[in-house]
Amino acid sequence: MKKNVLIIGAGGVGQVVAHKCAQHNRLLGDIHIASRNINKCLAIIDSIHEKGALQNRKGVLKAHRLDAMDTHATRELIEATGAQIVINVGHAFVNMSVLQACIETGAAYIDTAIHEDPTKICETPPWYANYEWKRKALCAEKGVTAILGCGFDPGVVNAYAALAVREYFDQVDSIDIIDINAGSHGKYFATNFNPEINFREFTGQVWSWQDGQWKSNKMFEVKRTDDLPVVGQQTAYLTGHDELHSLSQHLDVPNIRFWMGFGEHYINVFTVLRNLGLLSEKPVRLDNGQEVVPLQLVKAVLPDPASLAPSYVGKTCIGNIVKGTKDGKPREVFVYNVADHVEAYAEVGSQGISYTAGIPAAAAAILIAQGVWDVRKMVNVEELPYQPFINLMNDIGLPTQIRENGEDALVSFSDEALAAAA
Amino acid sequence: MKKNVLIIGAGGVGQVVAHKCAQHNRLLGDIHIASRNINKCLAIIDSIHEKGALQNRKGVLKAHRLDAMDTHATRELIEATGAQIVINVGHAFVNMSVLQACIETGAAYIDTAIHEDPTKICETPPWYANYEWKRKALCAEKGVTAILGCGFDPGVVNAYAALAVREYFDQVDSIDIIDINAGSHGKYFATNFNPEINFREFTGQVWSWQDGQWKSNKMFEVKRTDDLPVVGQQTAYLTGHDELHSLSQHLDVPNIRFWMGFGEHYINVFTVLRNLGLLSEKPVRLDNGQEVVPLQLVKAVLPDPASLAPSYVGKTCIGNIVKGTKDGKPREVFVYNVADHVEAYAEVGSQGISYTAGIPAAAAAILIAQGVWDVRKMVNVEELPYQPFINLMNDIGLPTQIRENGEDALVSFSDEALAAAA
Repeated sequence: MKKNVLIIGAGGVGQVVAHKCAQHNRLLGDIHIASRNINKCLAIIDSIHEKGALQNRKGVLKAHRLDAMDTHATRELIEATGAQIVINVGHAFVNMSVLQACIETGAAYIDTAIHEDPTKICETPPWYANYEWKRKALCAEKGVTAILGCGFDPGVVNAYAALAVREYFDQVDSIDIIDINAGSHGKYFATNFNPEINFREFTGQVWSWQDGQWKSNKMFEVKRTDDLPVVGQQTAYLTGHDELHSLSQHLDVPNIRFWMGFGEHYINVFTVLRNLGLLSEKPVRLDNGQEVVPLQLVKAVLPDPASLAPSYVGKTCIGNIVKGTKDGKPREVFVYNVADHVEAYAEVGSQGISYTAGIPAAAAAILIAQGVWDVRKMVNVEELPYQPFINLMNDIGLPTQIRENGEDALVSFSDEALAAAA
Repeated sequence: MKKNVLIIGAGGVGQVVAHKCAQHNRLLGDIHIASRNINKCLAIIDSIHEKGALQNRKGVLKAHRLDAMDTHATRELIEATGAQIVINVGHAFVNMSVLQACIETGAAYIDTAIHEDPTKICETPPWYANYEWKRKALCAEKGVTAILGCGFDPGVVNAYAALAVREYFDQVDSIDIIDINAGSHGKYFATNFNPEINFREFTGQVWSWQDGQWKSNKMFEVKRTDDLPVVGQQTAYLTGHDELHSLSQHLDVPNIRFWMGFGEHYINVFTVLRNLGLLSEKPVRLDNGQEVVPLQLVKAVLPDPASLAPSYVGKTCIGNIVKGTKDGKPREVFVYNVADHVEAYAEVGSQGISYTAGIPAAAAAILIAQGVWDVRKMVNVEELPYQPFINLMNDIGLPTQIRENGEDALVSFSDEALAAAA
């Protein structure tokens, strides 16, 4: 039974995680938020108080200034706060330093996206083997719980993959993860999370897992159009994404692909920026001698993703189209969630993309605090019991639906199923 | 009779001017080239020697390092070189400092584009009144020859306007200056001259002279399509441009407009960059604290315009569609030049856009050296006799054509006409 949570990162996802942890602070204990920019932490704390979100009004809720690239400073903050659960929703460049601090202190570690080296794009698959999994043995040896990639995608979709494989099929041929944001922010152009990370997803090779091996494509080379619940007809493009790099290693499924929805306008802007070299992470030299990373300038001129939330309208639909056989017959299901930008903003002050990424991380913290997911080793989400996770998310904002033969139904588990999974 | 030429600026236009001056150095005397980057001057000198372009092989041809924003340094260089003619084809930000150095030394001044303040875009019309014309009285008082805007447009098209008004019409209703580059550089995207200056033409209001007053439009708001000599059917957009700001003041013509040809791809890239704020001249602050001017970064990632020359193919067509009445009947003529990118590169190592801008400036230097244009005051090109200018350009690379009723003919002047004009 761990308690006291340190949230690292005060962007849109950090805001969601902080609100949701605050709503459960009787179980979770003290809530701490740390960022390089303490003002962003303080703004989140203000918004939690404004919404009266603290379940225990007398609970500790504190802001801290932290450079999470600094393992020593992170370790000191973990020790000073007594945090036994660290939720890392900071920059993807800080994963390994924060994980190291958790290993040194014994705190449980949760993140929502894979580690990245700022100087590299799209490394050799499987990506987790390049960084995180190198600490697997050490986590097991020290009994440190580390849950990797526990946002929506990766995260919830990994649980959906495990659910489908275990409960709906005898054999799975393909899992196609579809991520559609059918919402509108009303700006000329914006990314829904940190542009520096967002664009990195599309600038390198597109890795997918096909016929049991890695296949490389170019971005926007392969697309599909599906008629999806609530959001309707949507076109999505084969995209490289974290979850393929663990699901391919943990599930016996020959085809696992990730598809992200893009409108033509997004693709046009992206294509112009990429072709001009403005998405490069390599510095260029200006006439005045300045060395500037083009991608950092693009980030600076784009709207702050957090600023999109108040005017964001529409829905997201993210889920897994799974095909295979059951009892000798072909079967196809779509396991999915639909979230609403306006509802997300009303509850936690963030838009739907941040909401879908942040709620699962908070859910993981709750499950660790309850002992259900405190597994004392490093895991990806598909290696954990999905039943308590899906049930908890049904309750806290991200209900799971399944569509089969045109019929939609809520996915939830009985107490017996939960007990059997434990 | 002035002699010895100092060329300031070693970009594509500087290369053309230097080659053409070298081809006429028996008249022009010593040729000096100055730039912040002396290596660019040395490269031009190498290319002049490679082509054996020096008319007098023993003539002086020298490179100098110069920051032309520094009037004192410019004055010292004019004095040290004994230059009596300064051709300023540097950055548009240096006009006023170079002009000042000419006024102080008595050297003749020639430029090809209007002065710009780096911190301002698209100031109040007429633009010349904001900077250059404030020195008109001083030039007259000191007897300093200053020829403003003597590239192709502004420059040659100003002469074409004067020619049409004086020789082809009793009354001119409209002059539409059309600038079409039907060439192809083979890159994804590039500007044909310094992007920092190029984009500034399109980011502010579009001023045009209509019904005898200034009218403001937005860029890409108004377009026209014409069937033009050699380049065929071409679409051009109402664009703000230097020459309108003198022609409107010097000619009694109620409608003077400038139209620049753009392909859909150019407009798309430009629109994306502008809408994202990447063409701004105002610095933005990056996460790392750097203050960066977006336009300067865009310049740094785009191809160097000079690098386009070797692979540039196709033609340019620039000229004036003039409408009015003659002998009581409506008349329409198109006075124009067609230039060829490949031929330009073969002769002077620059592409056609630089060629059309540089030849007229060199022609002005020749006419000053001959005493024909050494007017000892500040003028725009339409105030000068166009006959020797057009004749000279016929000989040195930019022949003038006129199209009327579908018939094309060379425009040139007899010795009697030249004598009458003198």
